Amino acid sequence: MAFSYQRTIHFADTDAAGVVFFANLLAICHEGYEESLAASGIDLAGFFRDTDVIVPIISSEASYLRPLAAGDKVRVRVEPSALGEDSYEVRYEIVKEGPKGGKAAVRAVTRHVCIDAKTRRRLAIPPRLAAWAGVRIPA
Amino acid sequence: MAFSYQRTIHFADTDAAGVVFFANLLAICHEGYEESLAASGIDLAGFFRDTDVIVPIISSEASYLRPLAAGDKVRVRVEPSALGEDSYEVRYEIVKEGPKGGKAAVRAVTRHVCIDAKTRRRLAIPPRLAAWAGVRIPA
Amino acid sequence: MAFSYQRTIHFADTDAAGVVFFANLLAICHEGYEESLAASGIDLAGFFRDTDVIVPIISSEASYLRPLAAGDKVRVRVEPSALGEDSYEVRYEIVKEGPKGGKAAVRAVTRHVCIDAKTRRRLAIPPRLAAWAGVRIPA
Amino acid sequence: MAFSYQRTIHFADTDAAGVVFFANLLAICHEGYEESLAASGIDLAGFFRDTDVIVPIISSEASYLRPLAAGDKVRVRVEPSALGEDSYEVRYEIVKEGPKGGKAAVRAVTRHVCIDAKTRRRLAIPPRLAAWAGVRIPA
Repeated sequence: MAFSYQRTIHFADTDAAGVVFFANLLAICHEGYEESLAASGIDLAGFFRDTDVIVPIISSEASYLRPLAAGDKVRVRVEPSALGEDSYEVRYEIVKEGPKGGKAAVRAVTRHVCIDAKTRRRLAIPPRLAAWAGVRIPA
Repeated sequence: MAFSYQRTIHFADTDAAGVVFFANLLAICHEGYEESLAASGIDLAGFFRDTDVIVPIISSEASYLRPLAAGDKVRVRVEPSALGEDSYEVRYEIVKEGPKGGKAAVRAVTRHVCIDAKTRRRLAIPPRLAAWAGVRIPA
Repeated sequence: MAFSYQRTIHFADTDAAGVVFFANLLAICHEGYEESLAASGIDLAGFFRDTDVIVPIISSEASYLRPLAAGDKVRVRVEPSALGEDSYEVRYEIVKEGPKGGKAAVRAVTRHVCIDAKTRRRLAIPPRLAAWAGVRIPA
Repeated sequence: MAFSYQRTIHFADTDAAGVVFFANLLAICHEGYEESLAASGIDLAGFFRDTDVIVPIISSEASYLRPLAAGDKVRVRVEPSALGEDSYEVRYEIVKEGPKGGKAAVRAVTRHVCIDAKTRRRLAIPPRLAAWAGVRIPA
């Protein structure tokens, strides 16, 4: 289910071209991912420091449609979907808000795979995360 | 006058020690400074890209009292005060919020001086910024 | 022509999972891009602040193959190629160096388009940049 | 003993004012600290993820004397000194290199205290780190 996160563009996000540095746009997407996890009751500190199961990002894609500057108000739409038993993807849209409505500034996707932190072998998505990602767990 | 800004600690703020990297704590203070300027009606995009007057930070000091981790909720207290006709300082306190009330995590100060963007000579603080910083402008 | 840039992974690149935050891997690729431009004699300060022609990144893709930790030595291979008269792409490989030779850690690509800074209309790649990107300029 | 580290200013270090964001200057100092530790034979990955002894930064001070832009070449001078059995400080100077010699751009200091990672009680600086910091260990 889609989740939405609001954010102001900060000065540290920008670079000497006067707009947000492209890699920082992916970091802003990741903030939306974290807020979406937190909103579903997942403890972030535990999630990202888990010593058993980790969920690294294995790939990302992004289209940068419109520059963003310090002070801009953005909304990050976050939509996870399962890719299989052990992986999911998250789709993002960063929308620049304005008096005449929003305009898409970035569209991105990250792909994540659950692995055992020690053996690095693939594992099924843990139940809480599966619920968040909308995975149907077979009976 | 003191201003307060709320923020969740994001994963990108942290480092391999599991807590926020010390320099990122100053960046979080600066976010509070920006929000405080915006709250007083100053346009951020213009403020930081002004081609006439710029207000660089000339020094900073910080005490790091308590580690912060991803998912922590913090409040940044921001309090500017004039140092003279052409300079001001901003004091910050980052407070970690919790069920039993807040605990100070960082105390910091930044010092700023107004200069002409071209000649780099000192200039009086412009009126709007002076009002924000609480400067009494002599009649 | 391929260019190679060496770098040590710094603590600020990492996050609480103990490895480099995915978006910072794209920032490290961009460092390689900058070094490649500088090596071909292009002035970076001027390039990125040009008031006439700008070359924003319009898309990126990356595969994250292997985690990198503070202290790791990496080599960033950078290979530009023209996509047309007004755009080019840059391919990157971040290789983790080790006693038994290098192992690919990241493969990425960024796509760039030359535009007029004021009108935001597409422009032909300027000559020096075209030479760097290996564009054959028709007689 | 003083150590020196060379670095080019990258685009991601800068902000919309066209120069390095003040907090990133402290991150660049920290890179010099890491390189200094590595040069003395200390394993960085282990040092910063140690599960027994950690050495958090408890305070920092910095003076920002001269702006730095993308493409600038800098040298970071790093000089540690012991403050006591359980703490040390590191002094930094970031020098902008130029055809007519270097000019100081930043002077900074960070203070560090050794603590037990679990109890968070102060501990004596471990021998290798003490040797690096120039601590005389009493016979």
